[in-house]
Amino acid sequence: MEKRILELGEFGKNPQGGVSRVAFTDADKQGRDYIIQTMRKVGLIVRIDAAGNIIGSRAGKNNSKPIIAFGSHIDSVPMGGNYDGDVGVIGALECIDLLNEAGVITEHPLEVIVFTDEEGGLTGSKAINGTLQDRDMEVMSNSGKSIREGIIYLGGDPAKIKEAERKKGALKAFLELHIEQGAILHTKKIDIGVVEGIVGIEWWDVTFEGFANHAGTTPMNARKDALLTASRFVMKVNEIVRANPGNQVGTVGRIRAEPGAPNVIPGKVVASLEIRDMSREKILSIFKQIELAAKELAEETSVSISFSSLHSNIPAITDKRVQDIIASSAKTLGLSSQYMPSGAGHDSQDMAVVAPTGMIFVPSKDGISHAPAEFTSPQDMANGATVLFHTILAIDKAKW
Amino acid sequence: MEKRILELGEFGKNPQGGVSRVAFTDADKQGRDYIIQTMRKVGLIVRIDAAGNIIGSRAGKNNSKPIIAFGSHIDSVPMGGNYDGDVGVIGALECIDLLNEAGVITEHPLEVIVFTDEEGGLTGSKAINGTLQDRDMEVMSNSGKSIREGIIYLGGDPAKIKEAERKKGALKAFLELHIEQGAILHTKKIDIGVVEGIVGIEWWDVTFEGFANHAGTTPMNARKDALLTASRFVMKVNEIVRANPGNQVGTVGRIRAEPGAPNVIPGKVVASLEIRDMSREKILSIFKQIELAAKELAEETSVSISFSSLHSNIPAITDKRVQDIIASSAKTLGLSSQYMPSGAGHDSQDMAVVAPTGMIFVPSKDGISHAPAEFTSPQDMANGATVLFHTILAIDKAKW
Repeated sequence: MEKRILELGEFGKNPQGGVSRVAFTDADKQGRDYIIQTMRKVGLIVRIDAAGNIIGSRAGKNNSKPIIAFGSHIDSVPMGGNYDGDVGVIGALECIDLLNEAGVITEHPLEVIVFTDEEGGLTGSKAINGTLQDRDMEVMSNSGKSIREGIIYLGGDPAKIKEAERKKGALKAFLELHIEQGAILHTKKIDIGVVEGIVGIEWWDVTFEGFANHAGTTPMNARKDALLTASRFVMKVNEIVRANPGNQVGTVGRIRAEPGAPNVIPGKVVASLEIRDMSREKILSIFKQIELAAKELAEETSVSISFSSLHSNIPAITDKRVQDIIASSAKTLGLSSQYMPSGAGHDSQDMAVVAPTGMIFVPSKDGISHAPAEFTSPQDMANGATVLFHTILAIDKAKW
Repeated sequence: MEKRILELGEFGKNPQGGVSRVAFTDADKQGRDYIIQTMRKVGLIVRIDAAGNIIGSRAGKNNSKPIIAFGSHIDSVPMGGNYDGDVGVIGALECIDLLNEAGVITEHPLEVIVFTDEEGGLTGSKAINGTLQDRDMEVMSNSGKSIREGIIYLGGDPAKIKEAERKKGALKAFLELHIEQGAILHTKKIDIGVVEGIVGIEWWDVTFEGFANHAGTTPMNARKDALLTASRFVMKVNEIVRANPGNQVGTVGRIRAEPGAPNVIPGKVVASLEIRDMSREKILSIFKQIELAAKELAEETSVSISFSSLHSNIPAITDKRVQDIIASSAKTLGLSSQYMPSGAGHDSQDMAVVAPTGMIFVPSKDGISHAPAEFTSPQDMANGATVLFHTILAIDKAKW
């Protein structure tokens, strides 16, 4: 696996030791050509679907049975690393190698899927679950091409995008091996994360309105300082998110004070609020607590606080049966494992809509991701691919 | 006075009811021409000094005695109001009118001074006290002209800037009537503010360094959120400034979180810190308390905090004898008065270096200034001018 990770890492290689292999760029195309060649080498029948997804098929004993699919993506963020996505694709090819070596033909047909443009908005997997809209394809991607132009560049056909769709029942399961991108497994020295689902995300803009005034002539007790209230809010968000039991996270990542001069009391502040959790009810309950605290703060400080919802991602739950198969595969192999949510988004969240889906996490050194310093050891990659292999075989035999 | 305020307000008038009469613009030039004409009408001998200051002289009985000078400025901030500066200039002309009507010739010669470019950096008064540097004149002003070009445009001569300088002893006193620009007099319904001095100002940039990380995959207890620490700092500044006795003010007016995305934990925050007080020792003592609190915060949150000094204005104390003459003039006239610092900067802070200086404040409605809604009533303007008139006469007789 390490050899293939390094070979793939040549395409879009950056001087910092990572890759800038943004979807729809020449580097992305070259990396995909390398994957297509490798798929053919290991005996897969390759096609490009209407969304540009690369699909490598391996026949089963009974090809009328639903397909067991697995895969990930090879596109990266600008200035990304060598493991995000790549480990899942190379791990999937490793499974095909293992099947070939063992001379195993599964009952169900198999597919390795390499999704189009994961980082730019889960383009390929959205096409598969039927939620990719025409307006999504009008979006300008980081490659300089629109997503529509990019799909054509990769050999897809946006005019026939509906042909990429898979109906419920077409897949027996979808599996994705991926690096954790957080530090939980690395810190706890756990080999395998059994992903319970991909967290839901809610974003708000929070606006604080006080009164801008001269910082020299306005006494401390006559101020309506929007930044002072916003600061108390930032602390309240942290307190409330931590006071609730569970793994939810809440973040204020963006803040702007107006007019923004050292000698003017801020009259207005706009900040972002993001809450993530596996349960949408939990997210909304925490938001209600924050809203209530904000109401009290506003009354106490005479600075108004208002929220506007910007963005909403529903949580995606993985299949409980698949979770347990992954956990027992890890146990069989003598690997430690932990059930955990994924804090980041993945193609699996789209696949969960049309198929029983499972995700296998392997450790990210120091939790670093989306950066050249991203690293997962050869042993951890091998552990992940072996668990994926065992999971495929177990699902092949599973009665559903 | 109101008639002249309105006439002057025609030059640079803006649709919001205020003026945009930025120094060195055509509107500034036109406003100055109006003032020069009015000076001549009331019998003053007008000259423009090397810094572009307009100086209107009225002979005394003994012209070898030091001059009693009074005045202010007529340039405004962009989108300013009709009272900041203008009240002091029109009030000074009112005093000349009152002297003429009463047929009084003072012992000392008098001068009405209209300073060049107050809002852009006290240009005219700095030339008078000898601190205007060549590099100050290289600065690009809001007019689009450099300050040097602007001075030439107004009839000054930057090459002979030293000729604008006044030595200690040349002036018996300098007096400035000005609107308060704060809400203290308005709120307490006090007629006259006796300015004890112009506060010193210290600015710092405060940098918070934590660690930027994925807001989805980084648990709450594994974060080094620079904005969370910065928020606690903003609250601490407010607490400390308010906990100390006195009139000092402390403000965080500017804040920037990096990278500044809703889905990334802020790794770095840069904020401004400004402290103002009449005592530099007080400012530095409060800063020491803030530094100490920041050290504790940094240790507690594992986010480093560092300060860099950006700007420093030494406090300027007005003359105690002049203060008391202003207060007793107000009392004689049946006006209420209060000793108070000026939180904003004024030409008087430069004049205090070369002459016994006093400032008379009149109320600003709701404390609004540097905005079209700036307002001081005709009665308050008249009160201020009358106090100025009595103060000039008292200083003319004072033994110093």
